[in-house]
Amino acid sequence: MIESYVVVHNIAKRHNVGTLARSATAFGVSEMILVGRRDFNAFGSHGSTSHVHFRHFHSLSDARVFLKSKDCDICGVEITDNAVDVTQHPFKKSTAFLLGNEGMGLSAKECEICDFFVYIPQYGGGTASLNVTVAASIVLHHFGVWAGYSERTRDGNKYVVAERSARQVRRSFCAEKPESIIEMRRSRRENASNGFFDGSGNDVSSSSLLDALFTDE
Amino acid sequence: MIESYVVVHNIAKRHNVGTLARSATAFGVSEMILVGRRDFNAFGSHGSTSHVHFRHFHSLSDARVFLKSKDCDICGVEITDNAVDVTQHPFKKSTAFLLGNEGMGLSAKECEICDFFVYIPQYGGGTASLNVTVAASIVLHHFGVWAGYSERTRDGNKYVVAERSARQVRRSFCAEKPESIIEMRRSRRENASNGFFDGSGNDVSSSSLLDALFTDE
Repeated sequence: MIESYVVVHNIAKRHNVGTLARSATAFGVSEMILVGRRDFNAFGSHGSTSHVHFRHFHSLSDARVFLKSKDCDICGVEITDNAVDVTQHPFKKSTAFLLGNEGMGLSAKECEICDFFVYIPQYGGGTASLNVTVAASIVLHHFGVWAGYSERTRDGNKYVVAERSARQVRRSFCAEKPESIIEMRRSRRENASNGFFDGSGNDVSSSSLLDALFTDE
Repeated sequence: MIESYVVVHNIAKRHNVGTLARSATAFGVSEMILVGRRDFNAFGSHGSTSHVHFRHFHSLSDARVFLKSKDCDICGVEITDNAVDVTQHPFKKSTAFLLGNEGMGLSAKECEICDFFVYIPQYGGGTASLNVTVAASIVLHHFGVWAGYSERTRDGNKYVVAERSARQVRRSFCAEKPESIIEMRRSRRENASNGFFDGSGNDVSSSSLLDALFTDE
């Protein structure tokens, strides 16, 4: 089965992760891979973060090892000299899309882990680049067309939103490595004082931490 | 020459107009047509509102008369029963894309002025619909591919941004009908008290009003 992944490395505007998640779930993405900074908020996701699996790695090379274990190509979304127009669908198998940080595009280090690059042709002279979520959405849309994903059931003029599966949410956390959980706990302690997490001193479970992230629409 | 237009009717989240403008200029849109509420801010536009022509109408039927004078089809972006998958490029000539209000999609009144509809297939079950800018961007991208627009010159990994033409900006204002200018002046007086416009009592010219909108990045 052909799968797609979105890889986000140190994205600067945290709310972009929420809007990215909304497009990711619309286009059948299996997991969103956050590399580097773990914290984000779900603004703009319309609750769809609860339907996307998240996975976190501390480094790009850790993320690469995981993606290669899934037999994925890693595709950079960037205007490089050898980038292929995305409308040509230069895909071969399951693919992870690495998105540039909003300001700078992909760094040399990020480009190093990519197997190939796609870009979106622009026609007008008013902007140097597209918003990162817009660029990702166009690429994921084309990947879905290429992969032949089945269209989701509709109800009137909306797509049917799946029941939120608590089990699924928990599984996404079981996938964490022990060191990630340790880092998460540390981060939770640090954040408790600013009111983002429950600062009551009770042991906040992983699943309620996720709930806090996911219900923050 | 094939042209495209974006028509926005009473868009609820004003900052969406700015991000829409950024995609519109990237994909060679000729004008953004604002129907109904005139006020908006340019958050998210990365300055690209200064490269897009804006035009305002008070009613959908006024907008329709203008678009038909340009020999445009009006295409609703909405999941209706007779909507065509946008990847099939069901376009014939210059086209204006009417976007739904973020919350509700296109109203019955909005659908009435459309000649046909396109939709973007979704595959996953996490969201009922796409963000309005994401949906518009995917449709405008496909329209540009269909129309065969020339790709913009690049400089490294960015597209070259055109010099901002003061003349162009002024022309966009000359296109206003007298009653629009009267309404704009009224609105400016109303807004002066809340500090959005220059409240000094000096006669703020149309062009500096535009400057205020366009430099608000």
